[in-house]
Amino acid sequence: MIKIGILGAAGYTGGELIRLLINHPEAEIVFANSESNAGNLVCDVHEGLMGETDLRFTAEMPFDKVDVVFFCFGHGKSWAFLNEHDIPNNVKIIDMAQDFRIAAPTHDYVYGLPEIHREEIKKCAHLANPGCFATCIQLGLLPLAKAGLLCHDVAVNAITGSTGAGQKPSATTHFSWRNNNMSVYKVFEHQHLHEICQSLNELRPKNAPKVADTLAEKPSEGDITIDFIPYRGDFARGIFCTEVVKFDGEEGSATNPTAEQLSALYTDFYKDAAFTHYCNAAIDLKQVVNTNKALVHVDKFGNKAVITSMIDNLLKGAVGQAVQNMNLMFGIDEKAGLRLKSTAF
Amino acid sequence: MIKIGILGAAGYTGGELIRLLINHPEAEIVFANSESNAGNLVCDVHEGLMGETDLRFTAEMPFDKVDVVFFCFGHGKSWAFLNEHDIPNNVKIIDMAQDFRIAAPTHDYVYGLPEIHREEIKKCAHLANPGCFATCIQLGLLPLAKAGLLCHDVAVNAITGSTGAGQKPSATTHFSWRNNNMSVYKVFEHQHLHEICQSLNELRPKNAPKVADTLAEKPSEGDITIDFIPYRGDFARGIFCTEVVKFDGEEGSATNPTAEQLSALYTDFYKDAAFTHYCNAAIDLKQVVNTNKALVHVDKFGNKAVITSMIDNLLKGAVGQAVQNMNLMFGIDEKAGLRLKSTAF
Amino acid sequence: MIKIGILGAAGYTGGELIRLLINHPEAEIVFANSESNAGNLVCDVHEGLMGETDLRFTAEMPFDKVDVVFFCFGHGKSWAFLNEHDIPNNVKIIDMAQDFRIAAPTHDYVYGLPEIHREEIKKCAHLANPGCFATCIQLGLLPLAKAGLLCHDVAVNAITGSTGAGQKPSATTHFSWRNNNMSVYKVFEHQHLHEICQSLNELRPKNAPKVADTLAEKPSEGDITIDFIPYRGDFARGIFCTEVVKFDGEEGSATNPTAEQLSALYTDFYKDAAFTHYCNAAIDLKQVVNTNKALVHVDKFGNKAVITSMIDNLLKGAVGQAVQNMNLMFGIDEKAGLRLKSTAF
Amino acid sequence: MIKIGILGAAGYTGGELIRLLINHPEAEIVFANSESNAGNLVCDVHEGLMGETDLRFTAEMPFDKVDVVFFCFGHGKSWAFLNEHDIPNNVKIIDMAQDFRIAAPTHDYVYGLPEIHREEIKKCAHLANPGCFATCIQLGLLPLAKAGLLCHDVAVNAITGSTGAGQKPSATTHFSWRNNNMSVYKVFEHQHLHEICQSLNELRPKNAPKVADTLAEKPSEGDITIDFIPYRGDFARGIFCTEVVKFDGEEGSATNPTAEQLSALYTDFYKDAAFTHYCNAAIDLKQVVNTNKALVHVDKFGNKAVITSMIDNLLKGAVGQAVQNMNLMFGIDEKAGLRLKSTAF
Repeated sequence: MIKIGILGAAGYTGGELIRLLINHPEAEIVFANSESNAGNLVCDVHEGLMGETDLRFTAEMPFDKVDVVFFCFGHGKSWAFLNEHDIPNNVKIIDMAQDFRIAAPTHDYVYGLPEIHREEIKKCAHLANPGCFATCIQLGLLPLAKAGLLCHDVAVNAITGSTGAGQKPSATTHFSWRNNNMSVYKVFEHQHLHEICQSLNELRPKNAPKVADTLAEKPSEGDITIDFIPYRGDFARGIFCTEVVKFDGEEGSATNPTAEQLSALYTDFYKDAAFTHYCNAAIDLKQVVNTNKALVHVDKFGNKAVITSMIDNLLKGAVGQAVQNMNLMFGIDEKAGLRLKSTAF
Repeated sequence: MIKIGILGAAGYTGGELIRLLINHPEAEIVFANSESNAGNLVCDVHEGLMGETDLRFTAEMPFDKVDVVFFCFGHGKSWAFLNEHDIPNNVKIIDMAQDFRIAAPTHDYVYGLPEIHREEIKKCAHLANPGCFATCIQLGLLPLAKAGLLCHDVAVNAITGSTGAGQKPSATTHFSWRNNNMSVYKVFEHQHLHEICQSLNELRPKNAPKVADTLAEKPSEGDITIDFIPYRGDFARGIFCTEVVKFDGEEGSATNPTAEQLSALYTDFYKDAAFTHYCNAAIDLKQVVNTNKALVHVDKFGNKAVITSMIDNLLKGAVGQAVQNMNLMFGIDEKAGLRLKSTAF
Repeated sequence: MIKIGILGAAGYTGGELIRLLINHPEAEIVFANSESNAGNLVCDVHEGLMGETDLRFTAEMPFDKVDVVFFCFGHGKSWAFLNEHDIPNNVKIIDMAQDFRIAAPTHDYVYGLPEIHREEIKKCAHLANPGCFATCIQLGLLPLAKAGLLCHDVAVNAITGSTGAGQKPSATTHFSWRNNNMSVYKVFEHQHLHEICQSLNELRPKNAPKVADTLAEKPSEGDITIDFIPYRGDFARGIFCTEVVKFDGEEGSATNPTAEQLSALYTDFYKDAAFTHYCNAAIDLKQVVNTNKALVHVDKFGNKAVITSMIDNLLKGAVGQAVQNMNLMFGIDEKAGLRLKSTAF
Repeated sequence: MIKIGILGAAGYTGGELIRLLINHPEAEIVFANSESNAGNLVCDVHEGLMGETDLRFTAEMPFDKVDVVFFCFGHGKSWAFLNEHDIPNNVKIIDMAQDFRIAAPTHDYVYGLPEIHREEIKKCAHLANPGCFATCIQLGLLPLAKAGLLCHDVAVNAITGSTGAGQKPSATTHFSWRNNNMSVYKVFEHQHLHEICQSLNELRPKNAPKVADTLAEKPSEGDITIDFIPYRGDFARGIFCTEVVKFDGEEGSATNPTAEQLSALYTDFYKDAAFTHYCNAAIDLKQVVNTNKALVHVDKFGNKAVITSMIDNLLKGAVGQAVQNMNLMFGIDEKAGLRLKSTAF
């Protein structure tokens, strides 16, 4: 049994992580840390656990009793926490925040997207779990990036559920406002662009254009950009994304694949993925809600392809992927604890 | 033109009142008071007014320039405000809060339910506008109360939209929680019981049982009670209510009306009502959403009747009824400014 | 491995059953019968199964290869099917329809509510799975029935998700109509009253009043009734129910339990239940959505108790309970395949 | 009073048209034709009209008694109807379908988008009312088209409410499927592309690239395209659209306007529009729901602009605009009957 500690256990991701681990066949929660909720029953705080656990939140952090710690902090707090606390070397860390997603000489965190980093993940001690939008958008574009087919700016539209906005009530998560509403935010300026660009550039062949991270740099001549518009959806779970890509040359040539070639490219790219599937038919969001799956579909029109990709933002977009990564890090069945019944309706 | 001042103009009811008055053919908003929003454009704060008004919030309260003031404060603040401010005698007051809904020797506010108090409303200077649940439940029960047919405890279930919970974000108005959820609150203890009991007792014939206000008193032998369960609905606007009433004696006798007799009783009771209609067919909530209408329907089963009543909580349940009352108080067309297109979908 | 055949596999309950069984550790689907979909991939028809199964619908019914058959037909068709087909004696039957829920000399089906029939279920070959409303309402009332505390008519209000209306599109399941809407149907006349009354009468002590099935008989003097109003909710999954019960005598006496006594009564009644839990705190629907759990809570006011009970209509209200029954019938872990992560949001 | 006849009066647009006209100060419905509903009360068929009208559907079509006829048929039926019926020359026609939206020598219908055709509309006898997506997308792009600033392919994403799919229940309008779901359809192939391209080409300066109607023709070298992805939203009313446009040259030059220049361009273009407003702040869909308004907002990032445009699909996207056109055709106040209270919540 993998012994687990959770920090920030009273938030949304903390709750969803507990809902997963409670039924994980090879995991055991040793502590769920929350200062503000110390002593309270976990099932009194987190929806959906009634009758399933007697676990209580604790203010303690007994790192010597665990094999791995999940950081379910807000962004920026993981770094601060590590500066103030010592975690034994033999304890692995899985960080849900964005603090270590960008590779740097100052840290050894592996970016935890199994579709491209499975082998590194298996060996790592410290893992930075990808962002929700970042996961969904990358899964739509990675096969093209690797094939050197991203040669023009990409139009990305992605609609997220309200759980993406976290637990704290606010004007834009107020039911009266959000119900039956639609809006955009952080247009072209969402922070997940950093990690998306990092992965796309990592995979691209040398002769393919660089993907400029427009949040950090002005694109140079020849660079391409990810033009990402995030939408606030009037549902609670899920991210639904479309990506429009333009190709050059005659259809069927090496630079402009046909629909069949795209289908083959994606199918091959994801043939070993545990949870990401290419679908030949059109897809809809509820196929993945409450699962760790990602579905991807591609349509071709003239010299353009329209990719549809989708995930559950709290699962494949957060703690589901984190548990998948944990499974890989501990050498157990990648799907353990993640064979989830989709809500479907 | 009726010249109008609004206090508490930045809240939900304040906003809805402005949305109504902006198109009212005989009303003119002189000031919309909000200290925290003073100087801001009303259309920047209140959804749905873009392009329709240049009005700005003000911290001023020029009572000498208005004919009527609407109090859109939270409960308890109207009383406090009046203790601290002088409002000229010639300025009428319409209070949205519950401060003056219960008749008392200490005030002269008329309870503003036109279906029972039209004549008093026409003559009054100070009006206490009814609560949303209270309006909906009363409209379902008043014809029976007046006919002396409320002889047993009444089972009331009423589901309200999230706007009933006000503008301030909270755990139970968080979209992630409320979406697709259902729950109850203040079971048997909702504060609107006070005004409901007041009206039912006001109308009842001498020989009919007293309706005990269980919030204020223990029922005496022979009293009846209103057993009211409020539900939080996963929609934004509207109250949908069922009331189950038990009769005595043979069906068709004076104490146990037939379905046809009930239909006739309700139709007659509401024959002069401007916005309340009895329907012979079953009704659904969206028939009244975004209108000032109330619809009522009655089914009969054995010695019981099931009444369905419904309103838009922000309109007939709040500022729509307030404008209806204003129209009556100023002797103009009762429907002025209230011929609203229902949303329907 | 329990070998399973499914008839009517292309409908809502058929799909949900497949979603459950695909991950059941001791079950194997041998055939999923659907004439109209014969040859089609199950994952192309049922939302949420993409990437999880290669199963195809078949027009065949190889009963000799299975241990148990699930009938996922519409009501009335199970009876007809059995008249036209021979099912080997060694094949158990679990019927989702209402055809055999009422005990009769003409059949040997056990009514599959484990909270009251666990021992009979373990031994039976033929099982009639309870209705969704019926399950939810019974779980709220059974402890009182057994204790002889149902002495007055019970006011029942239950709100169901749209999946309760089945897969066939209709006016009242059209999104444009149902979204943000609320309505009632089959008021006091829902067919589940039959099975509810059967169970309540089965459990009641001899001296307690009979519960009259008002659909089938006129109540006699002294009988009590279940006054059930079904509501159409604007969500897809779940049933949320309140039941108001009146007691006689002094609070704390044998006939009028206190809140604490009620809590103890319910806790004790469900102490061995695998999925039904009594909660001392108020509950909300999403705690059970996408799980096989039922939650029950009781409030006490004067001489009345308000019970809140809730389930997922497709799981504990249909195929989840059916799988629970199958587990009992085959002597395996009652929770096998039913440790489901709640959707929570 | 304008005397009005409605054909196809029992459908969604027919119902919404009646909801508008019932309160129009200068209009009178003479007949509402529906063969299948002949004799039925309009308020029994169309949600939201209870208590407001005694009008009944009729199978008659007394064209001699009306000034204008609205065709609320499905697409293709207007043409067929006119082939089979004679409508007097003095009766104006407003067609809701797409039959006459594309100019042709065979008909004299004016394309009824007041923002570009107000003068032609005032003089016309036959009007083709624009499509819902087409209206929303055009209002986002017309100022750029006229200024010759559409020089690259435009990425358009537009999310529509379920009422856009019509009244007939189907798999994708089933509440159980659509609730909390998201999907795309007719990707790059929506039929409204025809009319969008027609308007954009009509307004473009001679030196600007042609907009190729990709449904009808293969783009030639130098043409640009409208890459339109329609989404099915999980709300009932409204269209929310983003359009991404790329400019050339230095920011601030004639070919690459700054944010301020774009704001000025749009503000000026819509300065005389009765219902279309440019907003400097970000906008959200519920600002227009249940109104005839269109709101447009533009953000600028590097050499790209992101336009947000939105309407209520049944009003500005259908019958609201039709009534606006009627008002222009009869020389009355353009806003008559269209000062609608937004739902806001």
